[in-house]
Amino acid sequence: MSKAIVVFSGGQDSTTCLYWAKKNFDKVEAIAYDYGQRHVAELTAARHIANEAGVHLHIFKLDLMSGISHNSLTDQEMNVDADQPENSPPNTLVEGRNMLFLTYAAVFAKAKGIQDLITGVGQSDYSGYPDCRNVFIVSLNQTLNLSMDYTYRIHTPLMWLDKSEIWQLADELGVFELVRDQTVTCYHGIPGSGCGNCPSCKLRNRGLNKYLNARKNGRIE
Amino acid sequence: MSKAIVVFSGGQDSTTCLYWAKKNFDKVEAIAYDYGQRHVAELTAARHIANEAGVHLHIFKLDLMSGISHNSLTDQEMNVDADQPENSPPNTLVEGRNMLFLTYAAVFAKAKGIQDLITGVGQSDYSGYPDCRNVFIVSLNQTLNLSMDYTYRIHTPLMWLDKSEIWQLADELGVFELVRDQTVTCYHGIPGSGCGNCPSCKLRNRGLNKYLNARKNGRIE
Repeated sequence: MSKAIVVFSGGQDSTTCLYWAKKNFDKVEAIAYDYGQRHVAELTAARHIANEAGVHLHIFKLDLMSGISHNSLTDQEMNVDADQPENSPPNTLVEGRNMLFLTYAAVFAKAKGIQDLITGVGQSDYSGYPDCRNVFIVSLNQTLNLSMDYTYRIHTPLMWLDKSEIWQLADELGVFELVRDQTVTCYHGIPGSGCGNCPSCKLRNRGLNKYLNARKNGRIE
Repeated sequence: MSKAIVVFSGGQDSTTCLYWAKKNFDKVEAIAYDYGQRHVAELTAARHIANEAGVHLHIFKLDLMSGISHNSLTDQEMNVDADQPENSPPNTLVEGRNMLFLTYAAVFAKAKGIQDLITGVGQSDYSGYPDCRNVFIVSLNQTLNLSMDYTYRIHTPLMWLDKSEIWQLADELGVFELVRDQTVTCYHGIPGSGCGNCPSCKLRNRGLNKYLNARKNGRIE
């Protein structure tokens, strides 16, 4: 029986990955991280979606992350960047986040005899987050294998898809409505189509409109 | 002004590294991890030694580690292996430990503009811990750089030294007595020469005797 663990946030990308995992593995578990992010709405959505998908959700609490570096997702005092700064990543960048998420997931997976880890990171609609790049994930996979003398396989089904193609994938997996209505991607924690103004909403909605147009015009079966 | 961060446990190896760092950098800070390890004696020693060295010590609490995998250092119910099993690492192995320690240290360092990280891992007296090998540290350094788009330098002054050579280094740094009397290496938390029976004590005391003999016989100046 094939088993996999999904790093899950209740957002568009990781929800699409959750259903991708359900299609490709016999048994799927998910981990969501409570790291002091701005909105509990994310974790509420994660719980709800995992429950609906019949996937056991583990919530791991990472208190330390918000204490040792600063960003607008965990510092309630900072304003979220409305647009991406020209020469730096947005202030929503949480340093080391994907590395810590995947390392904890890997430790947990090995203890359960699981080798397959799935994450929704991607570099097509690159937002300036270095830890979403393929070169990082490939290097991390190697480092994790060396760290624990174990063969992990990190899957990144969205790595080369733009947002419109991620909507298409959700549609193909039969969860287009679910992703559109129930996931939280917005930096202000508003579910579904969100606030419409933060960089995350703009990216999501631009991709959604592009996909809906393509579908309407029959360019997608 | 050159600055460095030492991953510090209050044991022989990391105490030697702390003084190596003080010799090689203008300003040194240390991080100790409270991860549910068996004995608070380690953290007590770490606080005391850092204080004496005039190094600011940060203690980071990592609750999650003991919750997601099992080992005899964080599970009070398990007995510590007296000898190393033939085909597996000792049950004192904490999966992912060095990777998590160094990743948190790196996130913290970047927020302070520090690039140099020092860890006391080494593979000469290899105890079967995969995350003490040079190949892992080199890979981790690369992954951290990619993760945060930053240039880290991980220093491992003990990588190729055996325990006797580590005693020699401590002696050269003028901290032989301090390391012998104040550090905690023993798996049972007994400071100095320890219980004498756990694999860690055996390794330490064998190296100490070898070094003392060599010094007595004038093979070391």
